[in-house]
Amino acid sequence: MSEPIDFYFDFSSPYGYLLSERIDDLAARFGRKVRWHPILLGFIFKATGSAPLTAQHPAKAAYSLNDFARSARFLGIPYTHPSRFPLATQNAARAYYWLHGQDCGLARQFAHATFRALYVDDRDISSPDTVLDIAEQLGVDHSALSTALQSPEIKTRLKEAVDQALHIGVFGSPYVLIDGEAFWGADRLAQIECWLETGGF
Amino acid sequence: MSEPIDFYFDFSSPYGYLLSERIDDLAARFGRKVRWHPILLGFIFKATGSAPLTAQHPAKAAYSLNDFARSARFLGIPYTHPSRFPLATQNAARAYYWLHGQDCGLARQFAHATFRALYVDDRDISSPDTVLDIAEQLGVDHSALSTALQSPEIKTRLKEAVDQALHIGVFGSPYVLIDGEAFWGADRLAQIECWLETGGF
Repeated sequence: MSEPIDFYFDFSSPYGYLLSERIDDLAARFGRKVRWHPILLGFIFKATGSAPLTAQHPAKAAYSLNDFARSARFLGIPYTHPSRFPLATQNAARAYYWLHGQDCGLARQFAHATFRALYVDDRDISSPDTVLDIAEQLGVDHSALSTALQSPEIKTRLKEAVDQALHIGVFGSPYVLIDGEAFWGADRLAQIECWLETGGF
Repeated sequence: MSEPIDFYFDFSSPYGYLLSERIDDLAARFGRKVRWHPILLGFIFKATGSAPLTAQHPAKAAYSLNDFARSARFLGIPYTHPSRFPLATQNAARAYYWLHGQDCGLARQFAHATFRALYVDDRDISSPDTVLDIAEQLGVDHSALSTALQSPEIKTRLKEAVDQALHIGVFGSPYVLIDGEAFWGADRLAQIECWLETGGF
């Protein structure tokens, strides 16, 4: 049995969203599972001296805005650039880890719903109310999750996930690890597929 | 008759080299020509607040070194990471523009030979002697090019090329413009192909 693939992302990363719509099906074609790891790019960028693409030089920011939407069209994935961008994602990430502790399939459903809430429906996923609403639509108890989002345990869980990502060298989103080989960016999908098919090239 | 495609690159850019090995044949399949524009990333990065990948955070630098070689293998292009990297490319770029003023086909041959000298044979293309030697192998007069490399005209020509690139929003290498649509990176090859095939998507 092969080891699962690790998929690190921030919910506010457009290329993370694009990869999230493909990675599970792609892995499944090769009999592989995927472990999802929501992280906070703000901490990653601070530690590695980087910045969001849209906060960089105006020419690069404008290019990136066009490329997010074009890459989505290229992959056949719906995309509307969010009116709030980038935005804080600690509530969404904390909810993910709390749900994962109870039902990892439900956590995956929540992750998809959260990405789509941001990139299809332009919802403010930085707000705890939005996160709670998304979870409630999936049958999650509102007050239990509301309490959990404020618990020290879940804050620590997310902090540990970010620290672990930094420790293994994650510097951006999406970042995929297959048997120790790292792939950064949704534009590495074709290489990921080839790697899974051949076991390395 | 369609407008030519514009291809901006620095001779020290690994992804520029990878795209240089594909762009002409790809364009030709769609009846398009390519205008090559060697530029100097040092000036581009200074103006846009960027830095070479290998001068960034150690995790990103290490990833990039692996990705240069892996992307080359993925595309089936020979690649050896140069022992001098990045390196100054103004002599190679000046030689290109001087040759282009006389014989644009010869300039293209020189560009390919220069990229391969760096990425296949690990030669020091920052040195005027290497540049002169590469050109001489293509039948170029050594002393005429040697004189030209020091001429104010050719220095101005290269400066104008860099300024023009900045003016139209080039912020990295390779940067390809097709009918006003920009594509940054060798990893946009599949999108470039689709764009040429469909006229936009």
